[in-house]
Amino acid sequence: MNLLVTNGTVLTMDEEMRVIPDGAVRVENGCIRKAGKSVELEAEETDRVVDAGGGIIMPGLVNTHTHASMTLFRGLADDLPLMEWLREHIFPAESNLTGEKVHAGALLACAEMILSGTTCFCDMYLFEDEVAKAAKQAGMRAVVGEVLYDFPSPNYGSLENGFAYAQAMIDKWKEDPLVTVALEPHSPYICAPELLERAADMAAAAHLPLVIHAGETRNEDEQIQSKYNRTPIEFLADRGALTENLVACHCVHVSESDIELMAENGVNVAHCPESNMKLASGVAPVPRMLEKGICVALGTDGCASNNDLDLFLEMDTAAKLHKVFSKDPSAVSAETAVRMATINGARALGLGSVTGSIEAGKRGDIIVVDTSAPHLFPMYNPYSHLVYSASGHDVSAVVIDGTPVMENRRISTMDTAKIMETVKGYAAQIRKNDPSN
Amino acid sequence: MNLLVTNGTVLTMDEEMRVIPDGAVRVENGCIRKAGKSVELEAEETDRVVDAGGGIIMPGLVNTHTHASMTLFRGLADDLPLMEWLREHIFPAESNLTGEKVHAGALLACAEMILSGTTCFCDMYLFEDEVAKAAKQAGMRAVVGEVLYDFPSPNYGSLENGFAYAQAMIDKWKEDPLVTVALEPHSPYICAPELLERAADMAAAAHLPLVIHAGETRNEDEQIQSKYNRTPIEFLADRGALTENLVACHCVHVSESDIELMAENGVNVAHCPESNMKLASGVAPVPRMLEKGICVALGTDGCASNNDLDLFLEMDTAAKLHKVFSKDPSAVSAETAVRMATINGARALGLGSVTGSIEAGKRGDIIVVDTSAPHLFPMYNPYSHLVYSASGHDVSAVVIDGTPVMENRRISTMDTAKIMETVKGYAAQIRKNDPSN
Repeated sequence: MNLLVTNGTVLTMDEEMRVIPDGAVRVENGCIRKAGKSVELEAEETDRVVDAGGGIIMPGLVNTHTHASMTLFRGLADDLPLMEWLREHIFPAESNLTGEKVHAGALLACAEMILSGTTCFCDMYLFEDEVAKAAKQAGMRAVVGEVLYDFPSPNYGSLENGFAYAQAMIDKWKEDPLVTVALEPHSPYICAPELLERAADMAAAAHLPLVIHAGETRNEDEQIQSKYNRTPIEFLADRGALTENLVACHCVHVSESDIELMAENGVNVAHCPESNMKLASGVAPVPRMLEKGICVALGTDGCASNNDLDLFLEMDTAAKLHKVFSKDPSAVSAETAVRMATINGARALGLGSVTGSIEAGKRGDIIVVDTSAPHLFPMYNPYSHLVYSASGHDVSAVVIDGTPVMENRRISTMDTAKIMETVKGYAAQIRKNDPSN
Repeated sequence: MNLLVTNGTVLTMDEEMRVIPDGAVRVENGCIRKAGKSVELEAEETDRVVDAGGGIIMPGLVNTHTHASMTLFRGLADDLPLMEWLREHIFPAESNLTGEKVHAGALLACAEMILSGTTCFCDMYLFEDEVAKAAKQAGMRAVVGEVLYDFPSPNYGSLENGFAYAQAMIDKWKEDPLVTVALEPHSPYICAPELLERAADMAAAAHLPLVIHAGETRNEDEQIQSKYNRTPIEFLADRGALTENLVACHCVHVSESDIELMAENGVNVAHCPESNMKLASGVAPVPRMLEKGICVALGTDGCASNNDLDLFLEMDTAAKLHKVFSKDPSAVSAETAVRMATINGARALGLGSVTGSIEAGKRGDIIVVDTSAPHLFPMYNPYSHLVYSASGHDVSAVVIDGTPVMENRRISTMDTAKIMETVKGYAAQIRKNDPSN
């Protein structure tokens, strides 16, 4: 199919941050062939046109860290101390998970992500093959990995089975144009050194991303320091996990020397400011990481600790949080925030040649932001609008891998009403089983 | 007119935080008569029905601090040090303001506020009579006050004329059902003691709100300390301005003894977290103020430092910012954030018996939040959804003073396309005159 996304300001997010007013993007057989002036590109023959209506045409957003199926627990429990929240609400709810529930929750998350302009996400959860299937069904690009840890899993049971499950997923999805499998040990505090080493080795051997929570809380930092006399980042380095294919999620509690170690080793960071704020985990030293050249991308984390999957709001929060926290109103500019949510996300996930910018040769992952509403008017600077004024609701079209999956707020790849009906039944059970009821 | 808003979960925001599932609200001649079960209220005769479609029915939001017409400068300049931003971009743009521009900017702001569920706002700016006219035209409840300071104003010229302008506004609008005039000296750092005293006296004599920026930046605190050997709050107390009708905006840099002084005197606070973050002003000690019983409400501040007027996002930011800043995930709960944006706002503005909650006898300022989209599903707790998952885009109906002003995202009181066309012309001038061009 030959597709033209036209009649908008094209933000390419390429190396030169090229902006094309009155621009268009041509996609052929899923692949971006050219970005240029609308008037030129419209002269060529086109099978299908997506009209941006004078809005913004940009790469689809990349959510580098989420637990998609936790949409099932959105708002189940909030405003609680971390351990009370986990032990009394989230863990009990998760102990009753099944593949069907994970699948339904992931589809609901895909609907929300598509409607808010996300075209690619990196997921960590249980029954992750179901998440891969949901992403495929929704037409989304996804990096998926079964979470691995030291105790038995409600999905695979023993850790040995967990590695077998991960390997089976790698084999199953290796040729897929949308789904990439990752190795995803949970964190330094519930993964033994051997687990981490084996996961890192498997990821390296298969050239796949390695995704792990690291330095999320003060408590984690203290546990690892007391157990190994190392920071979580140093501990990961010792295990051979500090590599260019590592996506270290959160990195709130990292020292200056940790940051240097991460920079030297080309580690990628998934920054999740809203989750870190809501759980009172702390503020990641993002301006310092960026100064050191670390590829910092954005993630929403799961819906139980955010409570949405809207990367536009995450950009806004990231830009503002680091300003106030560093006492510098020029910290994390709007352009930087948009880079974090697009090209940095793609690079972090090893998809830098596939998505994250509008450049000839990349896959056609493109979104349109409608700028005709009062809250986006007037427009002096499109980056400023995207970060400080827009939200996911302003996305009017989404193209993934060259296929339009949403136009005029309607998703064409799945029946959202049916998905919500399914989730409704699970939610009733979850509410009933919650100890607060 | 006899109006019924029905078929939703009613959050009354009354003293008991009463929630009515499958509820409805009856409004007669602009006044709330009753809230109760849909099935009962639907049995009575009704001129007009607003169907909430199973969503949330709640009081309209109250924006306690904004500069509405600064929509004209939305995104004109961002990510800059405060003084560079003000001196090189905002002040030059404001020096060319006219009544017509302020009117157009205020109408645009009203459109944005209505579309995001705000039914009442408190404004401080130049040519404020034009803002009052715009609010009236839009059908919004507003507290408006001409900004007063020590130097000549582009609107009224000398300060003496400024007080005359304020008095004329008071006389003009005193019987209006929607517009209340306030006295609004800018701040301790550009208002002489005599100015503050006179404004405070006028406000007290006329039983009107007194609105002032106070303790916004570290620099202000230092200036006032060095000039008067007092904190900004102590300085206001000396001038007789620390009273129950005072709305102190920002209050970022306030000491423990300032907070006690404010609490003792029944001062109200307009908390503007997003603006304070974006300008790197700091974090107001809101949990401590709430502990001391201070009425803390929410404001968006102007669009040049936010850059939107969406109070849903402001609730989200407030709840999360204080959690991370105080290292306590239970700080500023969702319920507290909703109170800040509704009943606390009404009380802060002296409108506690008029708006801010759904109670018999109050005016009919009611909004409907559509909860049928994927990002608001499933729903375990409506307060959690409003704060952590919803945004202004989810508002499907707005009733102000008993009149529906927005239904299904369409504003009935004004022609938004025409307003945007007018603003477009002004924006072209503003861009042309901006020194960066």
